[in-house]
Amino acid sequence: MTKLSMHAVSAPVFVRMLNNLSTILAKAEKHAKAKDVDPATLLNARLAADMFPLLRQVQIATDHAKGAAARLTGTQIEAIEDTETNFEQLQARIRRVVSIVASFRPEQFDGAENREISVKIPNAELKFSGLDYLNQWALPNFFFHVTTAYAILRANGVELGKRDFLMS
Amino acid sequence: MTKLSMHAVSAPVFVRMLNNLSTILAKAEKHAKAKDVDPATLLNARLAADMFPLLRQVQIATDHAKGAAARLTGTQIEAIEDTETNFEQLQARIRRVVSIVASFRPEQFDGAENREISVKIPNAELKFSGLDYLNQWALPNFFFHVTTAYAILRANGVELGKRDFLMS
Repeated sequence: MTKLSMHAVSAPVFVRMLNNLSTILAKAEKHAKAKDVDPATLLNARLAADMFPLLRQVQIATDHAKGAAARLTGTQIEAIEDTETNFEQLQARIRRVVSIVASFRPEQFDGAENREISVKIPNAELKFSGLDYLNQWALPNFFFHVTTAYAILRANGVELGKRDFLMS
Repeated sequence: MTKLSMHAVSAPVFVRMLNNLSTILAKAEKHAKAKDVDPATLLNARLAADMFPLLRQVQIATDHAKGAAARLTGTQIEAIEDTETNFEQLQARIRRVVSIVASFRPEQFDGAENREISVKIPNAELKFSGLDYLNQWALPNFFFHVTTAYAILRANGVELGKRDFLMS
């Protein structure tokens, strides 16, 4: 019997999708090599002039994953500087965040649905219950940035399919 | 006190994001009018030649929402034909799916984490527990298509921000 818990609807989702993102980025790097494309071209590609490029999408996706795991367990968010400039470093960042998210014990999430969580955004502070934070902030933001990373690569000709996004 | 339940991590998430999608599409339609752009140009826009256009992204997003609500509650999926050709019809489809998803009582989702769910995809049948189905299929697919709809519009110059995606 599967047990529903705040852990079960958060940490494994982040870990699975981060691993999928890692596979997607590996395919992108391989594509760049095969097509003799400068990897920086993909890493700096964006869907609109005022949207973030691929590299930043990956940084933000990982930030939402580790931010959610820390906030839901009431622990300190582990800071990671945004210094990556290539695929190898992004892969290392993803591995590090997978490791952070997976390091929490399921029971550390117990009661997280009622934890008071506040998130600072420019000029405002959002206040959520843990459940609303997960449903309305952490998961939508996380999926937004993983999907946008995938979309940037698809728009730039990298051979990816929905399967890579869902179950790579 | 917030209660964690299969309902709480599914139906309200779909409803909220569908309402956000509705707002995003309303802004897109307004943009087309203001810029004297044929709405069909936006509805048929895509990020890559082998990705679905905006109109189909909205249809699929709504399908995942009503499919998830039905499968998790063990009820019949209400079929909706894919006949929309304009913004008004897409808005009606979203309203209809919001109404379907919101029509289930929370207790109909009780125990859904252990419900056996199978999903037919081309040449295969996927089997999930209800929890895995939500985490690994319904939510990732749903967010994928809502985000891609947003991304198509952003790539085509519609003035939208992350806020529209998260909390419109």
